[in-house]
Amino acid sequence: MTEFTSNLPPNDLFWMRRAIELARLGQYSTKPNPNVGCVIVKDAQLLGEGHHPRAGQPHAEVFALRQAGEQARGATAYVTLEPCAHYGRTPPCAKALVDAGVAKVVVACPDPNPLVAGKGVQILKDAGIQVEVGVAEAEARQLNLGFLKAMATGMPYVRLKVASSLDGRTAMASGESKWITGTAARADVQHWRAISAAVLTGIDTLLADDCLLNVRHLEGVDDIHSVVQPKRIILDRQGRLPLSAQILQQPETVMVMGPYRAELAALGVLQLEPQPLATLLAQLVQQHQIYDVLVEAGATLSTAFLQEGWVDEVISYVAPTLLGHSARAMFNAEFEQMAEQLRFKLCDVTQLGDDVRLRLIPSQETL
Amino acid sequence: MTEFTSNLPPNDLFWMRRAIELARLGQYSTKPNPNVGCVIVKDAQLLGEGHHPRAGQPHAEVFALRQAGEQARGATAYVTLEPCAHYGRTPPCAKALVDAGVAKVVVACPDPNPLVAGKGVQILKDAGIQVEVGVAEAEARQLNLGFLKAMATGMPYVRLKVASSLDGRTAMASGESKWITGTAARADVQHWRAISAAVLTGIDTLLADDCLLNVRHLEGVDDIHSVVQPKRIILDRQGRLPLSAQILQQPETVMVMGPYRAELAALGVLQLEPQPLATLLAQLVQQHQIYDVLVEAGATLSTAFLQEGWVDEVISYVAPTLLGHSARAMFNAEFEQMAEQLRFKLCDVTQLGDDVRLRLIPSQETL
Repeated sequence: MTEFTSNLPPNDLFWMRRAIELARLGQYSTKPNPNVGCVIVKDAQLLGEGHHPRAGQPHAEVFALRQAGEQARGATAYVTLEPCAHYGRTPPCAKALVDAGVAKVVVACPDPNPLVAGKGVQILKDAGIQVEVGVAEAEARQLNLGFLKAMATGMPYVRLKVASSLDGRTAMASGESKWITGTAARADVQHWRAISAAVLTGIDTLLADDCLLNVRHLEGVDDIHSVVQPKRIILDRQGRLPLSAQILQQPETVMVMGPYRAELAALGVLQLEPQPLATLLAQLVQQHQIYDVLVEAGATLSTAFLQEGWVDEVISYVAPTLLGHSARAMFNAEFEQMAEQLRFKLCDVTQLGDDVRLRLIPSQETL
Repeated sequence: MTEFTSNLPPNDLFWMRRAIELARLGQYSTKPNPNVGCVIVKDAQLLGEGHHPRAGQPHAEVFALRQAGEQARGATAYVTLEPCAHYGRTPPCAKALVDAGVAKVVVACPDPNPLVAGKGVQILKDAGIQVEVGVAEAEARQLNLGFLKAMATGMPYVRLKVASSLDGRTAMASGESKWITGTAARADVQHWRAISAAVLTGIDTLLADDCLLNVRHLEGVDDIHSVVQPKRIILDRQGRLPLSAQILQQPETVMVMGPYRAELAALGVLQLEPQPLATLLAQLVQQHQIYDVLVEAGATLSTAFLQEGWVDEVISYVAPTLLGHSARAMFNAEFEQMAEQLRFKLCDVTQLGDDVRLRLIPSQETL
């Protein structure tokens, strides 16, 4: 477990970070549920810990309380997300904490789910438990960007992946693009797919690459079957998806937005009516519990997502190469003035082999 | 001075790194001379240290020996560059080390200057001094990339600066470009100018920006007058430079390659005959002692430098913004196949404010 970095007794932040580490163990498998971790502590001793491993299995608090047993009485529980107050597939965790007799509960993020919002904390307080909310909240939010946004707004958290040359090109004019980025960057993409409930692309990308868009290798994960695979969503307004497409070898995880086709229905593909991006995204949340969407598409669809303002984060891989100005541009908007530019806030820069990964958040500011 | 990081006595690498730190103190002022540092050590005690501060002033060894005085007898001298063996503006340093009676000399880089090459070491050995060459050589080479390349090949070390958006654009179609990168990135450019003997641009950039291309602020340097300003070289094959250009307010540091113009001569501007890039670059080394050239130019000239293979390093600032595909491309080559791409090795990634700086070295490899 985490090492103490000083001689001081571990504080709330220390224990909450441990709970966040535990929560992250579920990052590839809890969807559509959030990642949650919990530790039970008394007199600076860790008595129990747990995380939510997978939808349908017990919540983090249940595992931690089980491990702590009778010792939980009078202890402090650290939970990364407000304990649930409703009967879903499992009984409410707020009630479990009350029943276990904990003296104090420290929460990182309040739950934005209207079924829960504040009710978990209220149940605890009503039982005379001391409650503190907001410890390491910003760090804990990162665990559940999709869940939190979807519960608060009804829209998914959209990540846009782009891989381009230094001069902003994604392929030669012919479409040739293998490979602009190196193996480390391509392996990194697998992580973002695996934390997403859906990977979304356009029919042109699918026709060009016959891509699978699934998770095949993940660093640190031995059993790839433990990963809950993302749905693969194809925007195909003219119904051009060939039945021979490789992606249809696992039709149960494919969703196609386009005109109804009986042959796709026969395969078990879920079909969505053609609709604007805004209503599609809302439908993904409300009907399919898809809260994290990774867009891996060509310039036309990527540009539409960016210009319509649906992108919450850009995951940009920049390769140290120049492809020239006949090559395909990553971004197709026609801007005339600097004032029209789409500007981002840089959150993180990481070197991956010879490539660089930038994480960017749209910004309203201009320089 | 540098702190010891362990209880072991400092070793050769430790002292050479100290000498490299000292050498770096001259990075903005020794041109056209190399940056050199020297420390004199006996029984793990630092007895003297020095660096070459400016052309015409004494070499590093002289300062260090002066400080060590009589104690230099039997000591070890660490020098970042092979001590000189020829009488230039100062007597040979190899002889000074012999006269001081040092027992051992440790050298980082052998001097590639044909006037020196190996002769400095030979003088030391002939005097019975123990000599070791190559300690921290790679680090020490970084101090003098231009000097070392010029002495070895007769050509300057060329850095190409580019500042572009994430989609590889340097300006809107109209030419509007203020500002793509932020203040931290723009301040960083001043460092690269200040270590260069010349900044080179094309007439179109000069006409568009009326730029000065000089060094105005340098982090860590209080007195900007201590910096030896780079020459400003303008490629102006049609003789379009207006006499009202701001850059001509300090005509003595301006060089113009283009048709002879009496009015420029009257101002004191040095004029160069129109010639291909290759011969121009060779002339800069051989006639003007310009060993480090920073190219800050538009796409046409930058592309020519890249495609003709004259760029040793790209200093690339990438701003987190998208300018769209009507905006000006940073690189104008017309490539049809991936095999034609210009690929680089990524040496360093640094975040500067909201921008990212990549340092790239041309590579022969493709992925």
